[in-house]
Amino acid sequence: MKGTVLYGPHDIRFEDRPEPRIEKPTDAILRLAATCVCGSDLWPYRGVQKIDKPTPMGHEYCGVVEAVGSEVKTVKPGQFVIGSFCVSDNTCPNCRNGYQSGCEQMEFMSRAQAPILRVPLADGTLVATPGTPPDDLLPSLLTVSDVLGTGWFAADAANVKPGSTAVVVGDGAVGLLGVLSAKVMGAGRIIAMSRHKQRQQLAEEFGATHIVSERGEQGVARIKELTGGLGADSVLECVGTEDSMMQAVQSARVGGSIGYVGVPHGMKLEMFPVFLHLVHLHGGPAPVRRFLPDLIQLVWDRKIQPGKVFDLTLPLDQVAEGYRAMDERRAIKTLLRP
Amino acid sequence: MKGTVLYGPHDIRFEDRPEPRIEKPTDAILRLAATCVCGSDLWPYRGVQKIDKPTPMGHEYCGVVEAVGSEVKTVKPGQFVIGSFCVSDNTCPNCRNGYQSGCEQMEFMSRAQAPILRVPLADGTLVATPGTPPDDLLPSLLTVSDVLGTGWFAADAANVKPGSTAVVVGDGAVGLLGVLSAKVMGAGRIIAMSRHKQRQQLAEEFGATHIVSERGEQGVARIKELTGGLGADSVLECVGTEDSMMQAVQSARVGGSIGYVGVPHGMKLEMFPVFLHLVHLHGGPAPVRRFLPDLIQLVWDRKIQPGKVFDLTLPLDQVAEGYRAMDERRAIKTLLRP
Repeated sequence: MKGTVLYGPHDIRFEDRPEPRIEKPTDAILRLAATCVCGSDLWPYRGVQKIDKPTPMGHEYCGVVEAVGSEVKTVKPGQFVIGSFCVSDNTCPNCRNGYQSGCEQMEFMSRAQAPILRVPLADGTLVATPGTPPDDLLPSLLTVSDVLGTGWFAADAANVKPGSTAVVVGDGAVGLLGVLSAKVMGAGRIIAMSRHKQRQQLAEEFGATHIVSERGEQGVARIKELTGGLGADSVLECVGTEDSMMQAVQSARVGGSIGYVGVPHGMKLEMFPVFLHLVHLHGGPAPVRRFLPDLIQLVWDRKIQPGKVFDLTLPLDQVAEGYRAMDERRAIKTLLRP
Repeated sequence: MKGTVLYGPHDIRFEDRPEPRIEKPTDAILRLAATCVCGSDLWPYRGVQKIDKPTPMGHEYCGVVEAVGSEVKTVKPGQFVIGSFCVSDNTCPNCRNGYQSGCEQMEFMSRAQAPILRVPLADGTLVATPGTPPDDLLPSLLTVSDVLGTGWFAADAANVKPGSTAVVVGDGAVGLLGVLSAKVMGAGRIIAMSRHKQRQQLAEEFGATHIVSERGEQGVARIKELTGGLGADSVLECVGTEDSMMQAVQSARVGGSIGYVGVPHGMKLEMFPVFLHLVHLHGGPAPVRRFLPDLIQLVWDRKIQPGKVFDLTLPLDQVAEGYRAMDERRAIKTLLRP
């Protein structure tokens, strides 16, 4: 089998890899129907996050079960399944509290930019779709694995309620699906912060009622104008820098909520303004497993089309071009077909 | 009239001051029954928080209304009242959302270490007691103004629920009353972090079920031992340093809640561990006005005795000794009688 390996900054190779096999009785082997490149893959791709050896890449996946270990009970060969980017047992106290991304046995998935994938803790990680999906549903089903699940968590953590006002900071795929999530949760007004025409349009398709193209202080001033001087009930922070976090804090109303899902690489947050502003902060790696059943159903019933974030589809063996297109912001998100 | 003025580090004077009078039609004038020194007063007293001119001190108060402006409707001369350390109109959107400490007209109270006090926005700031209190209730009623209200907010922001496990970081008066608050809210286990015998005893009187005297990593290890390796549902952070905040984050369970009320003077928080740990953070200047009616009633009905945090009572003209005793940790909290 061939799979995707990152060797160093901008050095993605699609090369021979050992074919995955059952290693533990709780494993499953999937033949992937689709995989993709994540915004977070760009951190090591750009050399911002260091790697110390060639690293197999990919953590978003869906496909058909080929084999399961002897202890796997909830999925079986032939089923189409989707899993979280975080492997979890779904039985430990953290999982029972709804935080499968903090499972006592948690591992971050990798090696999914490949045709075949071994998934540890299959019972706790995978959820089967109601049947074999038609081909046109694959992109939307694939998003559930991470990018939709993460946008959904941002909205959930930001406490979006029917009728509330939500601001989305960040117009990457996660931010755009944060807009969609806020819409499904019933937000009355959704303000997307974006300066890119194509992303603005997609935000509007997903339910944004307002677009703010200014950033920083000017962006905050526009949010205040749109909210009677108060700021928003909910802010979804989908970037992960100190600037974007402060923009989120200042865009929230006093006592409002910020859901943050952008990985804070080395970020230190000045707490005094956060304190004075009395905001709620909640975020982290999304506990996608908590949301999988409901999000699969929403896609299956064609109530949402999160797959629209894929504006580039390539055969898996062109994965390097998929990274380049996202790195250069020529593509929002690249879908890869094995 | 004489009042308390801070001139510089360790230079507290009790000196002639103009007697407060009604300045605006929304003002009230109170003759104070009791006032006190706050832990936060020690920041400028120690020179950590700079002052640029002689500064009248004091923001915790209760007493009898002497006069009201022409627009004041909810309190009247002769009533015994308690007010928040934050002046608020209690009608703006932030107040209606329960965040009176972020009121659009908010001012931090000062000048309360004096016999007579002008309170702006009296209708939105003051709450009358059911009658004239007996003298022995004064210390407990006074705590409602800030120190109890702040400990209560820490527990509320940390999402303390019946049966949950709460950890309290900080054994000052706010932390001790955080213990009391968690107890009233029904926490099943309350772990107080303290290394001082007298404070440990008071924590136990207020409802602490466990005392942890270790700090930092060893303190966190003890909390983990006491919580089956998971960490606590709720952590009350009542100090405000980066060390105490990281101790709070690491003492919480994955997905747990931290209520922080220690003023974060210049604190920058490393967000990556907060992110990975998926905790909820909420805090700020306590919206005491939200809690005043219920807390007054709990004291009035003698269900709680928060006044026990006062272990030193002095005549107001000895206010300088009241500061010294707290600065040198000879006293937990000093009550001053005009």
